[in-house]
Amino acid sequence: MTTDQNRPAALGGPPAFPDGLPLTRVRVPDREGLLGRLGAVLDSGMLTNGPLVRELEERAAELMEVPHVVAVSNCTAGLMLVLQAAGVGDRRPVLMPGFTFSATAHAAHWAGGTPLFAEARERDITLDPADAEARLKAADSPAALMATHVYGTPCQVEELQRVADAAGVPLVYDAAHGLGSKRRGVPVGNFGLAEVFSMSPTKVAVAGEGGLVATRDAALARTLRTARDYGNPGDYDTLFPGLNARMSELHAAVGLTWLADLPERVAHRGALVAEFARAVAGVPGLRLALPEDGDTSTFKDLTLILDPAAFGLDNRQLAAALRAEGIDTRRYFFPPVNRQRAYAHLGQADDLPRTDRLAAAVLTVPLWSQMDPATVRRVADAVVRIQPFAAELAAGTARG
Amino acid sequence: MTTDQNRPAALGGPPAFPDGLPLTRVRVPDREGLLGRLGAVLDSGMLTNGPLVRELEERAAELMEVPHVVAVSNCTAGLMLVLQAAGVGDRRPVLMPGFTFSATAHAAHWAGGTPLFAEARERDITLDPADAEARLKAADSPAALMATHVYGTPCQVEELQRVADAAGVPLVYDAAHGLGSKRRGVPVGNFGLAEVFSMSPTKVAVAGEGGLVATRDAALARTLRTARDYGNPGDYDTLFPGLNARMSELHAAVGLTWLADLPERVAHRGALVAEFARAVAGVPGLRLALPEDGDTSTFKDLTLILDPAAFGLDNRQLAAALRAEGIDTRRYFFPPVNRQRAYAHLGQADDLPRTDRLAAAVLTVPLWSQMDPATVRRVADAVVRIQPFAAELAAGTARG
Repeated sequence: MTTDQNRPAALGGPPAFPDGLPLTRVRVPDREGLLGRLGAVLDSGMLTNGPLVRELEERAAELMEVPHVVAVSNCTAGLMLVLQAAGVGDRRPVLMPGFTFSATAHAAHWAGGTPLFAEARERDITLDPADAEARLKAADSPAALMATHVYGTPCQVEELQRVADAAGVPLVYDAAHGLGSKRRGVPVGNFGLAEVFSMSPTKVAVAGEGGLVATRDAALARTLRTARDYGNPGDYDTLFPGLNARMSELHAAVGLTWLADLPERVAHRGALVAEFARAVAGVPGLRLALPEDGDTSTFKDLTLILDPAAFGLDNRQLAAALRAEGIDTRRYFFPPVNRQRAYAHLGQADDLPRTDRLAAAVLTVPLWSQMDPATVRRVADAVVRIQPFAAELAAGTARG
Repeated sequence: MTTDQNRPAALGGPPAFPDGLPLTRVRVPDREGLLGRLGAVLDSGMLTNGPLVRELEERAAELMEVPHVVAVSNCTAGLMLVLQAAGVGDRRPVLMPGFTFSATAHAAHWAGGTPLFAEARERDITLDPADAEARLKAADSPAALMATHVYGTPCQVEELQRVADAAGVPLVYDAAHGLGSKRRGVPVGNFGLAEVFSMSPTKVAVAGEGGLVATRDAALARTLRTARDYGNPGDYDTLFPGLNARMSELHAAVGLTWLADLPERVAHRGALVAEFARAVAGVPGLRLALPEDGDTSTFKDLTLILDPAAFGLDNRQLAAALRAEGIDTRRYFFPPVNRQRAYAHLGQADDLPRTDRLAAAVLTVPLWSQMDPATVRRVADAVVRIQPFAAELAAGTARG
């Protein structure tokens, strides 16, 4: 029995988390203060798009050091309205990474564009500017360039802007994960035509459901304020087909509570990731999705990038081994969007070999803002303990 | 001075509501119960699309006596997803009334269709089935028929279904105002392919922001549950381009509170409208937007329909006279959607003369669910008092 103590749970050892460890936990900061605020919203009778939405926009603009923030119902709706305002339509191509969340492509589709997928960078799995440039050049009348700050890792914003300018298209960021990220000290929110953030429950700052659009373009911000209210400038004579993309006062109240200590929360997550990185240093075939030196990631996700040949397991096999330890994981993002059934008709499934390789290499492990260092170390230790048994585990998987 | 006492405020009399009377008031039923529920949501950490959303769907399905209700983020998103599921796309025509809220047309546009506008019925300003049928026959490959239960007045659902069937297109209802309405005893929610309801703050049942799709079609309901979560069936391999159209648990909690006594609230509104109708009976050139005998309206709006020649004022002039009384009003819906700037490029602005006439005739006056009969009578009395001075007021407007 003693030898089993050091074996992975999948091979008879004791599980690292007998009670299970979820991928994320949502704990509301300042519960009582928030309930007081929600009560005040109910009493005011103004339940949507009121003073708390304004306050949230102002607070977010301060945090991002950007002149305009427009709150919306969610990130997807924000992207749709930005792409509409940017002139996407007529099914023209919108270049975007294959390695992103499906909503990036869905927003382009709903706005009337056609997704055109490009490769990810090996280093951090954000959009590869060189590949994007080549595909934009080959595209017929492209309408826009989109990029995603994957897991909160800032994109190569300088290169991407150059690529967009050369192609003569607007650059729009899916910054769903990026609220609190910084590129060379400049907060995400300041890049491209606009950046669109998510405040849905898995994010580092949560509004229940919600999104924010940050832009330096005053005219765009005005358009978006009209667009989120049906395109109605106030006299019900709509200017264009808008959406109901209003954020409710209830969600704004929740979002304000989460924004209050966002910088501290991002710093704590960074410290947890550093702790994890130290604990897994030296494990063959394993690295983390990290921002470049001098950049800040929100670490919305703590994601491992495997070299399956060196590590001995691919992400699906490691996920199974960690599940036996009680540790929940996700393959974010798998399948890449260009392989999803929604876009099969575009015929781009086999166009991104590097993205395919990376999508088989990534595994997101549990992380949340109130996690303690001991827990993150215990997750790392489980990975460290598993790797020497990779061959045995892989054989088991193959047999299973 | 004594003669002034009986004159309209616009002509020197005392205003009916010196402190003003807003168009609507939102008062949350069961505030403490709701705050308890909101606290439980925060504690659960499950902030979106959880058990309260399921409970809201079940309660709404019971109320509507319909097998499937799918909660969504708002009515517009619900319409978009239903139209997408119904095959709208390729810019094919979607027939709809010009006399509706802009979101009816916006949803068709976002879903890839092109609005094609038809006339309203003289009697209740819902879609005219005969005109719809004629325009559908003349249309090139129409994709769908949409109709709106304006103010909560049930449409001519039997005739419209016949028209849709004859044209071979699905029938989708914008039931934004209709949660609690009944057609010949059958709850709205049971008609067409699907009916989409709003629970935004001006509605009779409020979720902060929110919408509900009711359908008798099990396959459509399944599709919509996938569609509201990005088209993700659970494995992240999306089936089609969905939206984030989830309803949050917070909004579901609010919505449940409002659903609890919806039938009583609808009945009370009906009694208030009957009170108003009695008080204005006999005023020349004035009628109300009422459902047919045997039908039930939510009276989301209490709307006057003027015959300007007989009443002596059009809706804009009466609105000015009521404003002087302290009474807030809205011209719902003005301008009709086919005249709005968003759809100018379709060239249908001048296509609907009856709708134009009705849009210049309607005026919505204050009504809310907790309003007392004395208040609604005081509004009616103001209208009764104004009419004999119509010529003098009209001359003043003309001079002004």
